[in-house]
Amino acid sequence: MKPIIKALVFDAYGTLFDVHSVSALAERLFPGKGPALSQLWRAKQLEYTWLRSLMGRYEDFTAVTRAALEYACKTLQLPLDGDQTAQLMAAYDSLALYPDAREALATLPGIRLAILSNGSPAMLTPVVKNAGLDQTFAAVISVDAVKIFKPDPRVYQLAPDRLGVARSEIAFVSSYYWDAAGARHFGFHVFWINRAGAQPDRLGAEPHQVLQKLTELSAIVGS
Amino acid sequence: MKPIIKALVFDAYGTLFDVHSVSALAERLFPGKGPALSQLWRAKQLEYTWLRSLMGRYEDFTAVTRAALEYACKTLQLPLDGDQTAQLMAAYDSLALYPDAREALATLPGIRLAILSNGSPAMLTPVVKNAGLDQTFAAVISVDAVKIFKPDPRVYQLAPDRLGVARSEIAFVSSYYWDAAGARHFGFHVFWINRAGAQPDRLGAEPHQVLQKLTELSAIVGS
Repeated sequence: MKPIIKALVFDAYGTLFDVHSVSALAERLFPGKGPALSQLWRAKQLEYTWLRSLMGRYEDFTAVTRAALEYACKTLQLPLDGDQTAQLMAAYDSLALYPDAREALATLPGIRLAILSNGSPAMLTPVVKNAGLDQTFAAVISVDAVKIFKPDPRVYQLAPDRLGVARSEIAFVSSYYWDAAGARHFGFHVFWINRAGAQPDRLGAEPHQVLQKLTELSAIVGS
Repeated sequence: MKPIIKALVFDAYGTLFDVHSVSALAERLFPGKGPALSQLWRAKQLEYTWLRSLMGRYEDFTAVTRAALEYACKTLQLPLDGDQTAQLMAAYDSLALYPDAREALATLPGIRLAILSNGSPAMLTPVVKNAGLDQTFAAVISVDAVKIFKPDPRVYQLAPDRLGVARSEIAFVSSYYWDAAGARHFGFHVFWINRAGAQPDRLGAEPHQVLQKLTELSAIVGS
């Protein structure tokens, strides 16, 4: 039996947009170190969102992303100047949309689509626009409204509040197991997108379905 | 001017006890993979403490440690049976005390000493006893009393509550920058032990002092 799904809510960074599309620029700026910088930058960016949330010391994703970039460059012994910082931060405004994301978003049936993201509004607006998606979503929801990051349940609550749809009728889509687990604990119907064949984390909640690509969604949530 | 310090509160795992002392056993069980298993196990263990805290889904450190071990072995494609799990979990009961920790604890002047740790009481009691430290501490405080992990401020609040000392008169000692930052945000006097020459994280709070070894403490907090 198909679940009754009235809205599909997507994680942005890593699920729709490829955060590692910054590594080409990182490689130009720091030859031989692009992928390492991209990996450490992303890992620290997530770590800082969790730590600042737990400390009760929220700063928006723009600030956290810049802090993580500075840490990553220091640790990798890459000299980072102001111009390079600006270029790398600007790369977040035009991250590549995953090919399966573009195809899925274009072919999903008449269901409301939204984004629920750690990103600050100042980051989400351009990345959505530059991907040609500014007419796609009923809502682009930033955690900034509650000043805490995923997977705090107050973040997930933003989606039913903003969309006017019960949590059980919202399907949440993320390529991060921990985000999927947080959403499942909250009460969404949850799809985990496991493009890379990763192991599931052990966090006491499992997604309802595991998909390899976003294009598999339309057959499941189609009316 | 020396700060007025009435109690010294130590992080346990990674600060007093070397969590990577499990890698010798891991290497015997999974030749060639001991260090990789030890590293991933520890990284996931911490990640799960943050994620479960944020989700409001606390499980104690024993459960989190076992879950992280299972994840790490799956990811590294190491077949883990029940006996190996029991052996690796038991290794946490007799982690090696860092040499500088042993020396520091033996030579610190007449100041109250305590542990404030993510560890469950069932883990902390044996590791302290097996290191011969069961007469050393005025209190061995587990986060289990508040069912959330560091760096949530409710954890740090346990120390002034249990010791009856104002937070500003407590010095907190950790080898984790994020733990030091959480403690500083809370209001402790903070020493960051940077044995490995790591880069400071960017979390909006700096320790009061950075030491290379715990043995440097006695000259600072001595009366």
